Amino acid sequence: MSQVSVGRREIEEAHARIAPHIHRTPVLTSSTLDRRFGGSCFFKCENFQKTGAFKIRGAFNAVMSLTPDEAARGIVTSSSGNHAAAVSLAARTRGMQAHIAMPKAAVPSKVAAVRRYGGNIVWVDGKGELPTAEEFDETAAEVQERLGASSVHPYDDLRTIAGQGTCTIELLADVADLDLVLAPVGGGGLLSGTCIAAATADPVVAVVGCEPECADDAQQSLRQGTIVPQTDPRTCADGLRTSLGEHNFAIIAEHVADIVTVSEAGILAAMRLVWETMKIVIEPSAAVPVAALLERRIELGGRRAGLILSGGNVDLESLPPWSEIDMAAFEGTRPEAAG
Amino acid sequence: MSQVSVGRREIEEAHARIAPHIHRTPVLTSSTLDRRFGGSCFFKCENFQKTGAFKIRGAFNAVMSLTPDEAARGIVTSSSGNHAAAVSLAARTRGMQAHIAMPKAAVPSKVAAVRRYGGNIVWVDGKGELPTAEEFDETAAEVQERLGASSVHPYDDLRTIAGQGTCTIELLADVADLDLVLAPVGGGGLLSGTCIAAATADPVVAVVGCEPECADDAQQSLRQGTIVPQTDPRTCADGLRTSLGEHNFAIIAEHVADIVTVSEAGILAAMRLVWETMKIVIEPSAAVPVAALLERRIELGGRRAGLILSGGNVDLESLPPWSEIDMAAFEGTRPEAAG
Repeated sequence: MSQVSVGRREIEEAHARIAPHIHRTPVLTSSTLDRRFGGSCFFKCENFQKTGAFKIRGAFNAVMSLTPDEAARGIVTSSSGNHAAAVSLAARTRGMQAHIAMPKAAVPSKVAAVRRYGGNIVWVDGKGELPTAEEFDETAAEVQERLGASSVHPYDDLRTIAGQGTCTIELLADVADLDLVLAPVGGGGLLSGTCIAAATADPVVAVVGCEPECADDAQQSLRQGTIVPQTDPRTCADGLRTSLGEHNFAIIAEHVADIVTVSEAGILAAMRLVWETMKIVIEPSAAVPVAALLERRIELGGRRAGLILSGGNVDLESLPPWSEIDMAAFEGTRPEAAG
Repeated sequence: MSQVSVGRREIEEAHARIAPHIHRTPVLTSSTLDRRFGGSCFFKCENFQKTGAFKIRGAFNAVMSLTPDEAARGIVTSSSGNHAAAVSLAARTRGMQAHIAMPKAAVPSKVAAVRRYGGNIVWVDGKGELPTAEEFDETAAEVQERLGASSVHPYDDLRTIAGQGTCTIELLADVADLDLVLAPVGGGGLLSGTCIAAATADPVVAVVGCEPECADDAQQSLRQGTIVPQTDPRTCADGLRTSLGEHNFAIIAEHVADIVTVSEAGILAAMRLVWETMKIVIEPSAAVPVAALLERRIELGGRRAGLILSGGNVDLESLPPWSEIDMAAFEGTRPEAAG
């Protein structure tokens, strides 16, 4: 097990470092959803965060931690999603170059976001439909070597983890007496940061990771006590397709209360429910913790839960037709009778 | 011209009356939209309001103004939209009956909302596809006579107008030095209340009404100096299809700075722009003031504008496919060059 060297202090230092550059996102509530889920829900709206996702926290922490010499040589990362835009914006803010290794199959809105924030895209040519993690790493390593750039991993990086933990620092400061925090898990950057922030809080708060059942590597890894790589993830939650990182697994295995999985239909229905009820746009990955409540994979039983709505970057044109997102299938999961 | 008997005092009294029952909705900003529109925009988020629209303000003001005797006999109104749900919730809160005259062609989500809030639906049988205003009024009058119920008009009612004006009282309290306020106009309840609140503010703030060009009765009425009824309105902004009311016209004619119109394509593009950029769900009617900026019908020129986002109740399944909402058509309206 790798040594865990992110603690309360590193997260608080990260927060001081990034606070001038990010939004203090609001925590929203919904009496309709509270009734439906049988408890009190507090939604931490990282969909309203700069670049539309929590990823900016880890990216700013890494970029603002570089020495002036390092900053002058630029930063490189590999990402097909929100981390790419986040590193681009953080680098532009510091007046330095960002190089982003992306697959040609990346979601168009996320490619456009990198360009808008001034990131240099380096296309990754994979042998398969999607490049493998190794092919990503090779491309990033090549750029790193050629330019002397620093690299920042989207999740398996202590600076990233500390940055993502700042979200829960804010949530716990804004909402008293939370019983648990629900966060989605892909590579585990957000979940591991959340775990440390919640485990070092006073009082300690339990954390439950939520993931798509067709990308359940985190649950498998937790059960088997070793990282089980994710192969062929076919989930609509495009932010959650990666395998757990090593640092992330070590932290999650030590601190997480549980990892639950949800169905694809549940993710889409939860996303639609939040759009319709709360009038906010969240991406499928952000709907995963809500789906855990909708599908009764977690019973609140009157408890107070913080849910991290991780992002709002959804390609509207790629969504299934609304008529195919079946809300009625989940009506039976209401605790109260219809009426 | 009918006597205008809503002033600052009536709006402030309305605010005191309804404040315990409604949300103090947030004012959001977006640096991306500020750059795009060439000024500073402050979005008053009535999409987050109870029942998902500003209509709850006028409804609560009317319901809470009734004497105990009147309340015991119930309240009746005619509405195909957000006012219907609003009166239902206000009546339920006061423990009294609400009777809502609705057309069978009403949007399903709005019928469901009335039922959810406990309103009694009275279907209006019209001769045409949609009942006329007279057919609505006949149905409401019949219920009123049979039960002795009070009636509250969705817009042409001084209690409604005073209630809708409270939105701008809050906006002006939260944002200093606004140069103008943009509000959508259908029957004119929101716009007339906005006009009085802005005209009696210190300093006075200019108000611009915004309406679909294919339902431009307010602009026509203002130009001709008399109410020009709306016939056959084919706009996607389903909240803005009605003709101006008499009280509303009198107030608007006296106070409004201008009324501008927008295209249907502009409304849908503005709606999509707000969803994608601000990550909030607004209905087409609420997108109309945003469309006025997107289509450069109003040039901000660095000014500070409040925009009332009137509601967020959109039937997702009735939206056109996203691919048909053409954003590129409006790229040329950006003040800055692409890059």
